[in-house]
Amino acid sequence: MKKLWGGSFRERTSAVVEAFTESVSFDVRLWRHDIEGSVAHAKMLGKQGIISRGDSKKIVHGLKEIAREIEAGKFKFREELEDVHMNIEAALTKKVGPAGKKLHSARSRNDQVALDLRLYLREEIGVIVSAITQFQTSLVNMAESHIGFIMPGYTHMQRAQPVLLAHHLLAYVEMFERDKARLRDAFKRVNVLPLGACALAGTSLPIDRGYVAKLLGFDSVSENSIDAVSDRDFGMEFLSASAIFMVHLSRMAEELVLWSTEEFSFAHLSDAFTTGSSIMPQKKNPDVAELIRGKTGRVFGGLLSILTTMKGLPLSYNRDMQEDKLPIFDAVDTIKPCLAVLNEMVPRIQFNKKRLSGTASAAYATATDMAEYLVRKGMSFRDAHEVTGRVVLYCMEGSKALHELKIGEFQRFSPLIQRDIYRYLTIEGSVRSKKSRGGTAAVEVKKQINRHRGLLAQ
Amino acid sequence: MKKLWGGSFRERTSAVVEAFTESVSFDVRLWRHDIEGSVAHAKMLGKQGIISRGDSKKIVHGLKEIAREIEAGKFKFREELEDVHMNIEAALTKKVGPAGKKLHSARSRNDQVALDLRLYLREEIGVIVSAITQFQTSLVNMAESHIGFIMPGYTHMQRAQPVLLAHHLLAYVEMFERDKARLRDAFKRVNVLPLGACALAGTSLPIDRGYVAKLLGFDSVSENSIDAVSDRDFGMEFLSASAIFMVHLSRMAEELVLWSTEEFSFAHLSDAFTTGSSIMPQKKNPDVAELIRGKTGRVFGGLLSILTTMKGLPLSYNRDMQEDKLPIFDAVDTIKPCLAVLNEMVPRIQFNKKRLSGTASAAYATATDMAEYLVRKGMSFRDAHEVTGRVVLYCMEGSKALHELKIGEFQRFSPLIQRDIYRYLTIEGSVRSKKSRGGTAAVEVKKQINRHRGLLAQ
Amino acid sequence: MKKLWGGSFRERTSAVVEAFTESVSFDVRLWRHDIEGSVAHAKMLGKQGIISRGDSKKIVHGLKEIAREIEAGKFKFREELEDVHMNIEAALTKKVGPAGKKLHSARSRNDQVALDLRLYLREEIGVIVSAITQFQTSLVNMAESHIGFIMPGYTHMQRAQPVLLAHHLLAYVEMFERDKARLRDAFKRVNVLPLGACALAGTSLPIDRGYVAKLLGFDSVSENSIDAVSDRDFGMEFLSASAIFMVHLSRMAEELVLWSTEEFSFAHLSDAFTTGSSIMPQKKNPDVAELIRGKTGRVFGGLLSILTTMKGLPLSYNRDMQEDKLPIFDAVDTIKPCLAVLNEMVPRIQFNKKRLSGTASAAYATATDMAEYLVRKGMSFRDAHEVTGRVVLYCMEGSKALHELKIGEFQRFSPLIQRDIYRYLTIEGSVRSKKSRGGTAAVEVKKQINRHRGLLAQ
Amino acid sequence: MKKLWGGSFRERTSAVVEAFTESVSFDVRLWRHDIEGSVAHAKMLGKQGIISRGDSKKIVHGLKEIAREIEAGKFKFREELEDVHMNIEAALTKKVGPAGKKLHSARSRNDQVALDLRLYLREEIGVIVSAITQFQTSLVNMAESHIGFIMPGYTHMQRAQPVLLAHHLLAYVEMFERDKARLRDAFKRVNVLPLGACALAGTSLPIDRGYVAKLLGFDSVSENSIDAVSDRDFGMEFLSASAIFMVHLSRMAEELVLWSTEEFSFAHLSDAFTTGSSIMPQKKNPDVAELIRGKTGRVFGGLLSILTTMKGLPLSYNRDMQEDKLPIFDAVDTIKPCLAVLNEMVPRIQFNKKRLSGTASAAYATATDMAEYLVRKGMSFRDAHEVTGRVVLYCMEGSKALHELKIGEFQRFSPLIQRDIYRYLTIEGSVRSKKSRGGTAAVEVKKQINRHRGLLAQ
Repeated sequence: MKKLWGGSFRERTSAVVEAFTESVSFDVRLWRHDIEGSVAHAKMLGKQGIISRGDSKKIVHGLKEIAREIEAGKFKFREELEDVHMNIEAALTKKVGPAGKKLHSARSRNDQVALDLRLYLREEIGVIVSAITQFQTSLVNMAESHIGFIMPGYTHMQRAQPVLLAHHLLAYVEMFERDKARLRDAFKRVNVLPLGACALAGTSLPIDRGYVAKLLGFDSVSENSIDAVSDRDFGMEFLSASAIFMVHLSRMAEELVLWSTEEFSFAHLSDAFTTGSSIMPQKKNPDVAELIRGKTGRVFGGLLSILTTMKGLPLSYNRDMQEDKLPIFDAVDTIKPCLAVLNEMVPRIQFNKKRLSGTASAAYATATDMAEYLVRKGMSFRDAHEVTGRVVLYCMEGSKALHELKIGEFQRFSPLIQRDIYRYLTIEGSVRSKKSRGGTAAVEVKKQINRHRGLLAQ
Repeated sequence: MKKLWGGSFRERTSAVVEAFTESVSFDVRLWRHDIEGSVAHAKMLGKQGIISRGDSKKIVHGLKEIAREIEAGKFKFREELEDVHMNIEAALTKKVGPAGKKLHSARSRNDQVALDLRLYLREEIGVIVSAITQFQTSLVNMAESHIGFIMPGYTHMQRAQPVLLAHHLLAYVEMFERDKARLRDAFKRVNVLPLGACALAGTSLPIDRGYVAKLLGFDSVSENSIDAVSDRDFGMEFLSASAIFMVHLSRMAEELVLWSTEEFSFAHLSDAFTTGSSIMPQKKNPDVAELIRGKTGRVFGGLLSILTTMKGLPLSYNRDMQEDKLPIFDAVDTIKPCLAVLNEMVPRIQFNKKRLSGTASAAYATATDMAEYLVRKGMSFRDAHEVTGRVVLYCMEGSKALHELKIGEFQRFSPLIQRDIYRYLTIEGSVRSKKSRGGTAAVEVKKQINRHRGLLAQ
Repeated sequence: MKKLWGGSFRERTSAVVEAFTESVSFDVRLWRHDIEGSVAHAKMLGKQGIISRGDSKKIVHGLKEIAREIEAGKFKFREELEDVHMNIEAALTKKVGPAGKKLHSARSRNDQVALDLRLYLREEIGVIVSAITQFQTSLVNMAESHIGFIMPGYTHMQRAQPVLLAHHLLAYVEMFERDKARLRDAFKRVNVLPLGACALAGTSLPIDRGYVAKLLGFDSVSENSIDAVSDRDFGMEFLSASAIFMVHLSRMAEELVLWSTEEFSFAHLSDAFTTGSSIMPQKKNPDVAELIRGKTGRVFGGLLSILTTMKGLPLSYNRDMQEDKLPIFDAVDTIKPCLAVLNEMVPRIQFNKKRLSGTASAAYATATDMAEYLVRKGMSFRDAHEVTGRVVLYCMEGSKALHELKIGEFQRFSPLIQRDIYRYLTIEGSVRSKKSRGGTAAVEVKKQINRHRGLLAQ
Repeated sequence: MKKLWGGSFRERTSAVVEAFTESVSFDVRLWRHDIEGSVAHAKMLGKQGIISRGDSKKIVHGLKEIAREIEAGKFKFREELEDVHMNIEAALTKKVGPAGKKLHSARSRNDQVALDLRLYLREEIGVIVSAITQFQTSLVNMAESHIGFIMPGYTHMQRAQPVLLAHHLLAYVEMFERDKARLRDAFKRVNVLPLGACALAGTSLPIDRGYVAKLLGFDSVSENSIDAVSDRDFGMEFLSASAIFMVHLSRMAEELVLWSTEEFSFAHLSDAFTTGSSIMPQKKNPDVAELIRGKTGRVFGGLLSILTTMKGLPLSYNRDMQEDKLPIFDAVDTIKPCLAVLNEMVPRIQFNKKRLSGTASAAYATATDMAEYLVRKGMSFRDAHEVTGRVVLYCMEGSKALHELKIGEFQRFSPLIQRDIYRYLTIEGSVRSKKSRGGTAAVEVKKQINRHRGLLAQ
């Protein structure tokens, strides 16, 4: 097939090379952004007199028609035209005649593809941030409606102290808030216009980059044309933020899997969100959570893929960089469905209040409260800790809970202990007492909820 | 949609869950292996009397018909049937009636999917090893036909010593030989029958796993049913071997890119294997090599993806493991086209003999030969090195080449130097002298060629 | 050895476990931050009356004395005391008696280690950002002093268009500007006080977290105690930003290696920054650049390491998280020396002006300029491109440069070509004409320099 | 400091470069292998007459003396001598005079460092394989002594079928067996002599590589000198095998953490292998298992690090490759202590037999057995599955276990069910019936034990 760049070539491209180097099979998804960018570019060319106003209008009109055709499924993308850009330009020239051949003035595929990818990512970051916000809202709602649920807080997967389930859920809301902040920070570096860098050096044609930026809603314009076509750090940064977000999702997924075990029995996922086994009819498998946890690897892989691809590349554009798109697309295609399914599933989780508080009560979970009690009575922390340890040991030997000890038994360990100790040995008392800022007392947790309500409303 | 595992479920699976958990969109490529495995399983069930001979035959017949339909593009895979296995089983039951419902006796999707993936990988490893062999053959041929070409050998990208181009090319043949060895070693661990592990515990039905292994050509049978359904190390190992192979390809690709620069001008890629620029008509871009180098990231990413997915999973099967397939498929889909395009491109590379030897001659590339000359004359290595260093410095100051010095000038540095020194200062003399085993002398390089001819003929 | 946490333990910790779990061998580097945090905590405890003013003063005094001892190399850290925190607390109690045992009131190692790591990273981010600024300043100076140097701009490692060396160097300044922005964005999420989260639930003691934040210069306070001790996303984010920065350094390093080859001969690294070969005395190896390029792997590895470690961990603190520190420390220890050595080496690079412009002139590098000339004359871009391609082909066949064609020869290809064409076919004319914003014309490059001068002065 | 390679250098190496490029701070650990290699090399030089027999003996004697000094801690390694090789050679020359300067004849640091690293890895692979074997032996012993323990087998972390604890433990023994096989396969590619490749081209001196290989116990000799100094795939392969091994350890670690939770209560780790909390005296944290799980990230990171470093490097030696050593050392330093601590800890784990069988009994774990019962009675698998599902649903509604149903109740679902059904509804009956090869019946598990006894004895 005759290439648009074929002027000085004496041999045709080998078919195997065509198949190997084509990108239209995956960059086709950029068609909308490609047309959006071309429309702005054509308007600028016309405004600046680089092409005639008439040609500019013809191009814009033709591009919009092509957009409608693609939308309607009537456009055939052809692999031998290499990429989405060439497919659209070829169709344009076919449609509007010679004017079409003028569109690529003061432009190169190097800056064009950087533009398309930035337009794409700008949009998807917005979509993802919204989906996270929706999910946070679910979690905040759930926290509010479960404010009375006490569960064991764990360290090292050992029950440590009673906490509010709401408090635990809000820990994820905090993580997601930072994830959004990272995505928004990435957005600032995505939302920069590369167009006008041309192949790498800029152009002698009298373009107006500021005008294109304005048409396309870019906050700023890349200030160095070589950098504009060489770098993909905006993509690496998006994938970094995505990988960290997936770490957070994987942790929640792990907890959903654990909480759904018969051993924990903290949460019940609705039948509609579990699947069965082909051989064990009693199973309700938390597949959704497992898959989310598993997909974490995919996003890590995508991040490392783009980092590796870019490592050690001399400036400016190298064809290696065509490999930037798949990991970015794959992360978007992974994260959005994860959020969609979580947004459906999580609000329907049923927590087992009795089981949660039962496990929170067991195992000397208020030992810390006893130690803090002793500190308040004036004992040094380390001594309080040791005394409490000895009391716990005594309880364990007698198979008793802390609150089951008689006051006399307590006082054998320290005369500082008075009857008011019992107020702190129940899980309710323990939780209520944790009124430090950010602590698990309901009064503090409600402050968190209010704070998030405010942030989410922005 | 009613699920085959839906017996004890009171709610329908949510559509979003169906879409999220389905795998048929990608595991469809295992259809051939799935049918192959089911045919063997059905034969065994019949032989063992677990199902009747008649049912067994019906199933086998039905499966073969389904295979023909798929091949002919007449089979419709449905997402709501989740995966390739359920799609085929549902079609079978529709086709052969109640017998179809007996196929899954003494089997679970857990061992079935492990089987399919092993059958797939077994086949693809064979294909990849063959393609590497073909590529090695090209390189050995090229080495042989270019035996007279001398080029600069580099360390730190600085010209170091003259070497034969053939010797350099054969370095890659060695690497690929080890890559094949790694793939073959991986094959040993792939080629193990997991079927019969059922869900995880084995079965009470009187199956004959050895018979199935024989029918399917497996060397051995997994000896622990829990391990059989839990582990994916065969996949991780394949991806490791693939990643290392891609490191080797990336190094060759880097060299092809460098050699094609005007600065090096060592090699000319045929027009059919380069592409042009949309704005710079004189460019001949080594896109193929660049893309191969870039795709290295993808295979690294795949390896890390599967490692991450498997990290920390308790036994036995977890749904996370569904994520094992995409990185494996992606590596196969990356490596095979890289080899296909290299197998076309590399034999047509034209090397610039004059340029190669010209650069090999420059820059005191035979300094080491002078040092070794002095060692042969009895000087200690370190002194020889220092003397040579001083001679080179003297040449650099006078802008002379080593062989341009007069014998008297040489002798001012060491009386050990005689007229025979000149024999070692040409690049031909230098290369000829490197007759140590594995060295760059043509006589040694020809031994390498013969050795590889033998290995490749196996 | 008796542990501070040993109250309820009936068996001593196995020595092999002690050695396996200790972290003091690497977290010792946090001693300064640990003491800084403890001083602030003790002051707050005193202010709030949780301990007496007197005890508070004793503790603060004791901690400062310990700091002096460590600084003077007189403090012995002991592995059996596990970590830096326990070492310092044990020494404190030895030094100030019972008051020392009160320091850990309303605190846990879980929030303490998060604090120390944040204090450390806050400091190191500052140091790294400064070192990058210094490096950018060097590059801007170099750009300014080499404003007249023209070099070939490359795409696909093929010479594409002439550009200013200054323009090329400033591309890196842009990248580093974004790297700093990423680090500063990370800083916002690092600079949050976790202390007061205690083990995970907060405390019943009347602490004042805002006061501690003020004393330690934190912008904000973590608002959820479980999140505060569970997450390490600030570390992952720092490593992501570091990995992207290393991609940029690796690209520059690659170029320094290439430019130092005899084939390119663009740049000469001073002898003080190259090393020799033990056997080839004429070699000047760009080891520094090679090592920087090589160390990229290390930082990628560190990023993957922390991501993997955190993947799938249930809340809150798990001991796995002890593994967060080494990759962070390693990235800091990699990046700072890379910048230190670049800051010494790069300003001393000597560029070969003649060689740069010579290569920029060759190979039809102004073909694009001819195409743009035709566009300005009214030809459509695609036609201009094709015409230029044919002219280049004609030149190649006659072994001529573009500017060597007679006007009549030009006009055979297009009557639009006039004598003014010659103005654009020299590299100087080409560069001068690229006056689009961000383009390579000196006037535009100087704007970049001024812009960076402004940014660097902030 | 004057360098051994400094002959043609006019400027001294900058101190910052010396500090940046030195490797002796970490390659010092190769001293033993460096000396071992040099001794063999010196013997060969003497045998071949490249140096005199007398010089050869002096060198060998001197090297052995240096070895004794290092061992005794009396040797001072100096950073300004760059690496372990130069440190030892400099000491040798100081000790034995001019003969020392002859040692480096027909050798370069390029082949020398490849040799040292191979000797090191060869040894460490042996050590690791032995440690794995010891750990497997512990697990086999534990399997044997716990042959009567029944536990729930899990899929999707849901209880699926009863299995023997021994069977579960042996799944890991299988994984480790493959890990050892991978390490042994890697060993074949490690155990190849690179020495004699010299800088990259071989040598004109009459060396005898086969003799050196024999002295050092190498199975073969690298057949291409460029490959010998360029590649590090043996290191990448070792790290791949290590990463996969760590996946297996991380899975076991995860299970140990889970089994130690109060929720599971399957296993009790001895106090000597757990640690406490500084604030919660009742905690027994499974730190060892957590740290092993966490360290998985480190080994993944090391693998990615070396892959990244090697990606895209042109042949032959580049200084980037100095970065190969740290990830290899780090993996060795991670894996050996993990095995050491597991080898101490695992044999002392106490399993809670009653709890294991209790959980195995619950939750319709023998539903599959009922389905297989129906298949044996002639029902198709899918129908049997559905019938069983309905029975389970009936039980769930009545809060009954399967074996608590009356025969009449069963027969309402299928007339095929007879009184013998009860034999299969206990967990003992279920396990006993899984007599397929590799299944969980004790008779099969004992075969596994015997098979491993045989393998371990080799």
